Amino acid sequence: MTKPIWIKHAAQLATLASDVKGPRSKEAMSELGLIEDGSLWIENGEIKAVGTTGELAKRYKDRVDQAEEVDASGRLVTPGLVDPHTHVVYGGSREREFEMRLEGATYMDIMNAGGGIHATARMTREATEEELIEQTTRRLDSFLAHGVTTVEGKSGYGMNIETELKQLRVMKTLQQQHAIDLVPTFMGAHAVPPEFKGREDEFVHLLINEMLPVVASEKLAEFNDVFCEKGVFTPEQSERILEAGKEYGLVPKIHADEIEPYGGAELAAKVGAISAEHLLKASDEGIEAMAQAGTIACLLPATALYLREEAAKGRKMIDAGVPVAISTDCNPGSSPTTSMPLVMNLACISMRLTPAEALTAATYNAACAISRQQQIGSLEVGKQADIVLWNVKNYQELQYLFGVNHVHSVWKKGIQVVNQEEKELAASLRTVTK
Amino acid sequence: MTKPIWIKHAAQLATLASDVKGPRSKEAMSELGLIEDGSLWIENGEIKAVGTTGELAKRYKDRVDQAEEVDASGRLVTPGLVDPHTHVVYGGSREREFEMRLEGATYMDIMNAGGGIHATARMTREATEEELIEQTTRRLDSFLAHGVTTVEGKSGYGMNIETELKQLRVMKTLQQQHAIDLVPTFMGAHAVPPEFKGREDEFVHLLINEMLPVVASEKLAEFNDVFCEKGVFTPEQSERILEAGKEYGLVPKIHADEIEPYGGAELAAKVGAISAEHLLKASDEGIEAMAQAGTIACLLPATALYLREEAAKGRKMIDAGVPVAISTDCNPGSSPTTSMPLVMNLACISMRLTPAEALTAATYNAACAISRQQQIGSLEVGKQADIVLWNVKNYQELQYLFGVNHVHSVWKKGIQVVNQEEKELAASLRTVTK
Ligand SMILES: [Zn+2]
Ligand SMILES: [Zn+2]
Repeated sequence: MTKPIWIKHAAQLATLASDVKGPRSKEAMSELGLIEDGSLWIENGEIKAVGTTGELAKRYKDRVDQAEEVDASGRLVTPGLVDPHTHVVYGGSREREFEMRLEGATYMDIMNAGGGIHATARMTREATEEELIEQTTRRLDSFLAHGVTTVEGKSGYGMNIETELKQLRVMKTLQQQHAIDLVPTFMGAHAVPPEFKGREDEFVHLLINEMLPVVASEKLAEFNDVFCEKGVFTPEQSERILEAGKEYGLVPKIHADEIEPYGGAELAAKVGAISAEHLLKASDEGIEAMAQAGTIACLLPATALYLREEAAKGRKMIDAGVPVAISTDCNPGSSPTTSMPLVMNLACISMRLTPAEALTAATYNAACAISRQQQIGSLEVGKQADIVLWNVKNYQELQYLFGVNHVHSVWKKGIQVVNQEEKELAASLRTVTK
Repeated sequence: MTKPIWIKHAAQLATLASDVKGPRSKEAMSELGLIEDGSLWIENGEIKAVGTTGELAKRYKDRVDQAEEVDASGRLVTPGLVDPHTHVVYGGSREREFEMRLEGATYMDIMNAGGGIHATARMTREATEEELIEQTTRRLDSFLAHGVTTVEGKSGYGMNIETELKQLRVMKTLQQQHAIDLVPTFMGAHAVPPEFKGREDEFVHLLINEMLPVVASEKLAEFNDVFCEKGVFTPEQSERILEAGKEYGLVPKIHADEIEPYGGAELAAKVGAISAEHLLKASDEGIEAMAQAGTIACLLPATALYLREEAAKGRKMIDAGVPVAISTDCNPGSSPTTSMPLVMNLACISMRLTPAEALTAATYNAACAISRQQQIGSLEVGKQADIVLWNVKNYQELQYLFGVNHVHSVWKKGIQVVNQEEKELAASLRTVTK
């Protein structure tokens, strides 16, 4: 039995509470459940009460002495951010490849120098489980420092069964060891391994008949994702893989229409995917189908920035009734970042989401995209006490003052896991002799 | 007499030392003066020796006991970043206007609601000197936390003499009070005040004959900047203002060719400006003239991102022989950010600078753009000990792992002013009950 925690005097408490349960679309994406002078009462890692500081002071007047008080004066308070799409478990680093590209190297130069996704596959195959745990831990620490308390992670750098299972086991271990909650997705169909070039159907057969059964029997994943794109997996192959996963209770996700319109959004709606990812080139029909089916669009504006592509049409999708979530897409090739705050900023700047919609997309709708909206994504009685205090006074400022990590402190299940308060040596700021 | 400081075992020390003194162009922008297992010896705020840890251990073998040792193992070490273009002194905040725009408000809606640059002018006029000092201090604290140890700041939200002087006096006070070094620029010609609409030449006359003499006699500025753009100040008016400033010893700078090609780059070369800013639409002739004259291009990729404009052609300018610096352009309208690390990332992503060029643009060339290359911008014997330790192992990673503030700690004139080491409660990261 730990001490109750009483967070008081939030300048603005964005609870994200709403009557709309499940993925939020249109106007519901702007319902932040704002409370001025907001307050939260937390016991045993759970939210017990939400209201104004005055209301909670009255309600708990006999117990306030026992509580640990947290003064949130002048600060915005929100649910912990949720990142619903990452490839966070990988071996190695590709900063030299980044430099080569900027020095004028072509795609083929980089492939010849051993770069690209196959470099990551090689380094992930070579890494021990311990090495992957160590590298991924540092990335998760960075996520946490950026206000993220739950992260989805995909396999997919193995392209062989041992490495796929290794990635998923690393996530299982980290789920035990790290403060962040990890939600695992099997993505054996991330790329066609070089040895199966021209024999894609054989690989699909292997994936369905050899990999999926093991993943399912070891309970290593909740979702099943596929890279549906010209030259990778066709919609027909993708459908087979996703339907096969459903047999094992794995919920479909789909990397869709990133490079060209390929029917991925339509397929997501058809197979009942919980979310479709990227969608830079999704067709109008695909968007309409997703709106009808309630498929979440998981949009990745940091990837678009990094690849200098035009971002997905987030504004248009929301207006069309598609529930939108956002994510870092953290991966070593096309989005080596851990900053969900930057992703929220880019959702506004590049995709024209409003500040309120961007916050919903990074919390409640992101939780929906990984089936966690019962536990997280909003600050409501009975939910996990995953909470961020920000060094800004309101949710608009969080998006407006862009490119900066405004996190003040982070609470995971009622335990403070990040405290940036004393990061600057304020005293010496004033004492440098000039 | 303070204790000597001995920084040891930097995985990579980027000294930025080079034989090229003054603005660096072409290949010289890639000379980082790298030292593996690098080391610095600091006394009284000054760099006394630079070399490998072994070299310095030998040289100071009789004094190492007296020194405060700083272990930089596994870390990149660079000069403090320099931001050569900001509008950091301003009143108020415009996050609600940001939201209105994303909710579909037009430019006129925002003007009618009292928004835009004139909102900042009003709030800056209304703010007391103390209020401006307080607001600006918070912004400078954020700059410092992002590894920036010197910031140029412009007046220009006054559009009347009292407020222009107030902004410049705030900078003078902050130069005394804050660890960051502030370099002041007079920018009375930032916009035409509404009361001078249609009588621009009268305002230019006032600026030259009333404002400049006071700014000069009170020694409130080193540079004189003008917004040369269609509908603001013509090249002819800009030239008159800049030439008048030269009479008072103020070095010209010029906001040039941001919105359309307007001869700003050409004018910068002609008047001998130390730098030209923005340059999104600079003509080929203008770029060639700048290369010939050695005018620094001060490029602002965060502003381009925020305004959804195509960034300036940084790659092309470097290839043409123009020395390039980069900056946040920190201001409440078009770039409300304090993150020079993000600006370096964007210089690579959006402008195709190499990681090495981006670092030079944010240190040595940025120092040149404010005439400070004798004191700062590189880590060489006799220079100020303005130093950043980064949580990355090399300069490539600093740009590749984008959107994250990798600062570990910052030293200003040999005094540690930022320490992010203990910002996360590492212990509790592992102890959350699941
Ligand atoms: Zn992905
Ligand atoms: Zn400017």
